[in-house]
Amino acid sequence: MSLSKEWKLELQAIVGEHHVIDDPALYGPYTDDFTDHYVSKPLAVVRPANTEEVSRIVRWCALNHVALVPQGGNTSLTGAASTLRPDTEILLSLRRMKGLIHVDPINNTIAVHAGTPLAEIHDMASDCGRLFPLSFAAEGNATIGGCVACNAGGVAVLRYGTTRDLVLGLEVVLADGRIWDGMQSLRKDNTGYDLKDLFIGSEGTLGIITAVVLKLMPQPQEKETAIACVATPEDALKLLSLAQGQASSALTAFELISDQPISRVRKNLPDVPVPPLDDSPWKVLLELSYEIKSTESGLEKLLELAFEKEIISDAVIAQSQVQQKQLWHVRESIPLADRAEGGSIHSDVSLPISRIPEFLKETSQLIRSAYPWIGESIYGHLGDGNIHYNFVSSTDPQLTYQHEEGIREILYSQVNRFAGSISAEHGIGQLKLEHNYQFKSDLDIELMRRIKSVFDPEQILNPGKVLRFNQ
Amino acid sequence: MSLSKEWKLELQAIVGEHHVIDDPALYGPYTDDFTDHYVSKPLAVVRPANTEEVSRIVRWCALNHVALVPQGGNTSLTGAASTLRPDTEILLSLRRMKGLIHVDPINNTIAVHAGTPLAEIHDMASDCGRLFPLSFAAEGNATIGGCVACNAGGVAVLRYGTTRDLVLGLEVVLADGRIWDGMQSLRKDNTGYDLKDLFIGSEGTLGIITAVVLKLMPQPQEKETAIACVATPEDALKLLSLAQGQASSALTAFELISDQPISRVRKNLPDVPVPPLDDSPWKVLLELSYEIKSTESGLEKLLELAFEKEIISDAVIAQSQVQQKQLWHVRESIPLADRAEGGSIHSDVSLPISRIPEFLKETSQLIRSAYPWIGESIYGHLGDGNIHYNFVSSTDPQLTYQHEEGIREILYSQVNRFAGSISAEHGIGQLKLEHNYQFKSDLDIELMRRIKSVFDPEQILNPGKVLRFNQ
Repeated sequence: MSLSKEWKLELQAIVGEHHVIDDPALYGPYTDDFTDHYVSKPLAVVRPANTEEVSRIVRWCALNHVALVPQGGNTSLTGAASTLRPDTEILLSLRRMKGLIHVDPINNTIAVHAGTPLAEIHDMASDCGRLFPLSFAAEGNATIGGCVACNAGGVAVLRYGTTRDLVLGLEVVLADGRIWDGMQSLRKDNTGYDLKDLFIGSEGTLGIITAVVLKLMPQPQEKETAIACVATPEDALKLLSLAQGQASSALTAFELISDQPISRVRKNLPDVPVPPLDDSPWKVLLELSYEIKSTESGLEKLLELAFEKEIISDAVIAQSQVQQKQLWHVRESIPLADRAEGGSIHSDVSLPISRIPEFLKETSQLIRSAYPWIGESIYGHLGDGNIHYNFVSSTDPQLTYQHEEGIREILYSQVNRFAGSISAEHGIGQLKLEHNYQFKSDLDIELMRRIKSVFDPEQILNPGKVLRFNQ
Repeated sequence: MSLSKEWKLELQAIVGEHHVIDDPALYGPYTDDFTDHYVSKPLAVVRPANTEEVSRIVRWCALNHVALVPQGGNTSLTGAASTLRPDTEILLSLRRMKGLIHVDPINNTIAVHAGTPLAEIHDMASDCGRLFPLSFAAEGNATIGGCVACNAGGVAVLRYGTTRDLVLGLEVVLADGRIWDGMQSLRKDNTGYDLKDLFIGSEGTLGIITAVVLKLMPQPQEKETAIACVATPEDALKLLSLAQGQASSALTAFELISDQPISRVRKNLPDVPVPPLDDSPWKVLLELSYEIKSTESGLEKLLELAFEKEIISDAVIAQSQVQQKQLWHVRESIPLADRAEGGSIHSDVSLPISRIPEFLKETSQLIRSAYPWIGESIYGHLGDGNIHYNFVSSTDPQLTYQHEEGIREILYSQVNRFAGSISAEHGIGQLKLEHNYQFKSDLDIELMRRIKSVFDPEQILNPGKVLRFNQ
């Protein structure tokens, strides 16, 4: 790549002197990757203020054959927002492009700039008496543009859907710098091909998302949260079916948690209160939410019925908002407890819900016979079929990393066998690229390549993510 | 096009002698178009039994440069399932490809062949205690493949979404005959570009849908239906907001109906019982549905509150299932009553919900000053922002048809001005193709063309629908 000596000045002419950073000492917030796994070495970090500047930067990149990596909150779990080839790629940070564009509580829509952190969108919605329901751990940092690029999931997908279900419109800067205006606020529109859904989940490889129109939901007035004890994943599924039959429209979260990670929370994080419960091998954390306060407790009735039917052996219902937060805190503390244990390896798989018990049983047997020393940490959004089948090793933390390839091989083969997905929520990025090629059909890859060549023939948008860089 | 003399024998070798029909006397069910508007003259009607036969036919068409028009139930309202160039296009009927592939009540999914009528899928779901919620007038004939190809809407979109929201997986035969297997039953899957959503709503122009995996919902145990009287569309919106705040998770349908079409039902269809109501210029038909029977009536409380707040002046709540059906029957009878009136012209537009009152007021003024003799028939799915702004002319039925272009010009310009869509549910087909080119940006059209050339470079799949045929 033969760049003009003036490259920095040319970029500064677009975004301003202070918004082209090429001092590695200042790269931290943009290159310190959330998983501590990827080394990111940009040619420069460039920080546009608005869509017009993004458009001009992209045109400059196209002209000069410089690749760029779009980034929101830098919370990717797959290296999707890290540069690949050192000192050659622009890291394009959209963090300055934040804020409200328009909110319409009657239409139940909100339009925002892509660099707006998810937690701020929660506040904007709340300010007009609504809910934007997309929610997950990194929401203080994650920006909506990144959420859309990765089709982020979270804990409330069961009721409200993934990011894809919550997006009505997009503004996208294409690989030649042209701005695609798809900023609809319509719930129904059958006037051509669904370009919007191509960009959603494309992880910055088909276009750069610069603004989003999102759906708003009614603000729940009341929530009920409980942890229940079940003997097996089969019983967890029975509880799920019961909950769906009794209260599907209120059912907001349904998490399966095996007891081992909970034990690790007790052991490694003694300050995290864990409610006293039966010693059952599995727990379910469930939450119902309602638009209006009710005189009766739907959750109590549901759990009583489940107890009568011997689906659950015990349960604790939160009696206050503080207790609700405590129950969730147990769930949210698991990654930290696992890290303290040592050798923590993550996965993010999804399966047809009905097949999960068999999948868990079989996979556990296979993995524990291959690696008898391994510790399992199984928890996830059972209601969506999404399991984080994670591992630890207390004996020798290095063991899991040494055998990581083999562990994933068994796990992913099992996922494939059970007609599941090797990436339910987190996307492909760099992390799962090769595995994805292994499990996708040749036709799938070919169609994706051809779509990529429609939108980014020169491969300047996040090359080497999702698809291999085509030499 | 120079076809071999053996063309009919070649096709019969694929599907069998009786499933290649080239006697126009037998074309009726395949060419009598639902709107009585399009002349369809196929080279032949070909009726495959399964996906493999579809694949072979498509390969034959590709080899012989013969276009084909895929068809399900032949209920298109835009000529999407009618042939364009006489005696040259194969009409590919998927009606023989019907039936259940697999149902999974725990995973809440059902997989079916594309030629299965929608009403039969309702029965399949009901048989296992579930609901497939997509529902509209033509469901006895419309097949799920067609629903998916057109992203059909219906009356329950407010609660359950459009077809797009209900599809988890597809099997599609591509323009070169290869079979794309996207038959996932997963609710979360972030492993690449969203090809599924490209096919949904593509109206048979990017591939032929041969099988579908659909979401199932809990079966409602109880429904409440009412018609309420409101003075203005603004009041209808206030009622909608109130309903969403009080009962959003139960709110299943919310239809706005102006009083004129209801008067026409009374006048032209005297056998259709219309409940006694205030003489208000607007009515709202709303429905709540619940998973479990409730002791209290949510609808009653809601309407009492609306009455106190002077949002509604009167209401009738159905006291039995028979009465529920009667209320819906009024709504469903409007097209027939309008046709009896004469000069019936339809539209299917959507707008941001908050802008509908202003849109209706302004548009009505513009149209009635241009055409003082015109009668309006305004009704639709207000909860989704989808209005059927229709017209009649009792004075002289021919007048509306003579002035149809001008009427649509005013209407669509208004829709465009209010950031709406000229086709909310019914798609583009042939009917709205030229108007769509008028209102889409050049960039939109270019991107659609480029996607078309990825999937169907020879333009054999439903040419001249959605996009102009590229000479």
